This record gives sequence, structure tokens and C-alpha cells, in this order.
Amino acid sequence: MGESGTGEEHYWYAAEKKALLGRLRRIEGQVRGVHRMVEDDTYCIEILTQISAATRALQAVAIGLLEGHLGHCVADAARDGGDPTAKVKEATEAIARLVRS
Amino acid sequence: MGESGTGEEHYWYAAEKKALLGRLRRIEGQVRGVHRMVEDDTYCIEILTQISAATRALQAVAIGLLEGHLGHCVADAARDGGDPTAKVKEATEAIARLVRS
Amino acid sequence: MGESGTGEEHYWYAAEKKALLGRLRRIEGQVRGVHRMVEDDTYCIEILTQISAATRALQAVAIGLLEGHLGHCVADAARDGGDPTAKVKEATEAIARLVRS
Amino acid sequence: MGESGTGEEHYWYAAEKKALLGRLRRIEGQVRGVHRMVEDDTYCIEILTQISAATRALQAVAIGLLEGHLGHCVADAARDGGDPTAKVKEATEAIARLVRS
Repeated sequence: MGESGTGEEHYWYAAEKKALLGRLRRIEGQVRGVHRMVEDDTYCIEILTQISAATRALQAVAIGLLEGHLGHCVADAARDGGDPTAKVKEATEAIARLVRS
Repeated sequence: MGESGTGEEHYWYAAEKKALLGRLRRIEGQVRGVHRMVEDDTYCIEILTQISAATRALQAVAIGLLEGHLGHCVADAARDGGDPTAKVKEATEAIARLVRS
Repeated sequence: MGESGTGEEHYWYAAEKKALLGRLRRIEGQVRGVHRMVEDDTYCIEILTQISAATRALQAVAIGLLEGHLGHCVADAARDGGDPTAKVKEATEAIARLVRS
Repeated sequence: MGESGTGEEHYWYAAEKKALLGRLRRIEGQVRGVHRMVEDDTYCIEILTQISAATRALQAVAIGLLEGHLGHCVADAARDGGDPTAKVKEATEAIARLVRS
């Protein structure tokens, strides 16, 4: 993962970057909302509903990132006669972590 | 759910309230970390790992809340010869939302 | 878990037992269907759709069992002045396994 | 998805086909085991444990299929200067269904 932070191969999500950052700000607000609900002794079931919503929003961000990753990094690895096996394995492991979380 | 905010029936998680609030602060920090990673063009797979960690932490908070809810609200509803059916149904629906999120 | 197989405390799901058994038969058929699809070299994405359907059906059975369990075993433990803590802890651990699977 | 059943583009999982079929047989047995447990009035929590195991096994099969699909169908679509966008979108939708199930 030495590629991190080069900012080069990641142009692929540049277009959606602004939208992604907006969604993450909203999720941060949702988690802060859960914090406030616990502080205010809100009824437990309502807090659980809000946690489910934040979880789903986080997973939607993950799915969006994954789509960009498959379409760029994985596809690029396959493009010029390359072997995408390592990239596919890495992506699959990330998917398995998402499915289990 | 008119019970919200009465602050009365919720004494049950008072003891763990401080710990819960601390965990939620940390999750807020994790989401802010994901925001920063996207801003810095961090490698996609690393961002996904961080999102999985935040999702799991949120679900652990939900499980903790649920344990308190079952042990107090649901048990209380059953206690004095009462019928816990409505509380059980409500809790089960919250669990179903968690399982699916 | 020495209680298993006494057939006594489980009357609670007797009413729904027939329906549950029917749903499990259908899920068995779905898994057999996935087996056949793999054998026939069905397009991978279609197999994944069928696996998602079987998974969801299994989780719906689990949620139904859990609702019965909370409404009977857990509520019973609370009823006559008893302490439901052990039953609640056991149920919560089962829920955590479901959420993570 | 008219490609289904041509048996042509699916050579990719031929090697693992036998292993996959064996795993699916075992999952079928696990579901049959859950059926038997309900029939025998097994303690609810034990049934839930078995359902979690079957669910996890199904998801492991899905992850295995997905790895093959990404490494072959998606990579192939990218290979000879092709545009993998449609294949990536289709795979991402399947992943989203898995994450939510």
C-alpha cells in the first residue's frame, strides 16, 4: 500500500470527491446526533433507528468507493496485459470485511 | 414513542452512559478520519478498512444499548403480570433493522 | 444449555412451528438451487442474487425465532420476580452473532 | 444476462467448481439441520447459532464467486481496450445486495 498519498492513481474519484465529502459530513452529524440522544436519555429504540441509518449511510459510501476502485485500479491493472490478481484479491478482502461488518 | 425524553425509564443505561458517550466520541473521530482520508486521496482500500471499523464500532454501541433495553424495558413490561408483547415486537423490529444494515 | 430437547419451554413457538418448518424447506430448496446453478455454469451475478435471497430468508427465520424467544423465555425469566440478566445476556450474544453474520 | 448457461465465460471458476459444490452441499445439510432442530424443539439460542453459521458459510461462497468474477469477467472487460463500466456497475450492485443481506 505504498501507493497511498501519491494522489496520482486516485484521480478516479476526484469527480465524486465533493459529493463523498458532503455525505461524510452528514454521517459525522448523524453520529453527533446519536451522542446527543444518549446524553438526553432519548428512548433506546429511537437511538437504535438512528444508528441503523448512520451504518447504512457509511456502507453506501463504502459501496461508492468500491465501484470507483473496481472501475479504475482493478481495471487498470488488467488493461495493458497486466495481471490483476493481486488487486482483485485485495478488493475481495475489503468486500469480505464490509459484508461481515 | 411519547416516552422519549422523560428521562425516567432510561435510568437503566445511566451507569454505562459515560462509557457509551466516550465510544460515540471516538466513532465521530473515526468518521472525521474517513473524511480526511478522502480529502487526502488516501488509497481506497485503506479508506474501506476504516469505514468497516467505524461500522463495527457503531454496531457494538447498538448491541450494548439493546442489551440494556431488553434487560430493563422489556423485562419491566413482563414483570408485574404485564404483557410484554408490544415491547418485544418493537425491540424485534429494531433488531431486524440492525441485522439488515 | 442443558435445557435443549426437553421440549417443554419451547411450546412458545409451537403455533408458528409449522410455518417455520415450511420456510426452512424453501430455504433448503434455494440452497439446492444455488448448487444447481453452479453445476450449470450459470452467470455468476445471478448466483450471487440467489445467495443474497437465501441469506435474507435465513435471517428472517432467525428474527422470527428471536421474537418468540424474547417474548417467552426472556419475559418468563423476568416474570415472577426473577432476574432475567443471564437470559438477556445470552439473547444479546445471539443477536450480536446475527448482526455480524 | 443472456450469457447465462452458455458455459463459456464461466471456465473461470471451473477449477474451484468442485470445492464450491462441496461447500454448498454442506450448507444444504446445515439448513436441513436447522429444520430438524426446530422439529425437535431445540433450545432457540442453539438454533440461532446454527443459522448464523449457515449464513456465514453462504456469504463465504458468495465472496469466493465474486473474487472469480472480478478476476475474470470484469478484468476481461477491461483487457482489450474495452470499457468495464457496465460490468463494474453490475458487480457493485451485487456487492451492495450482499452487504445489505
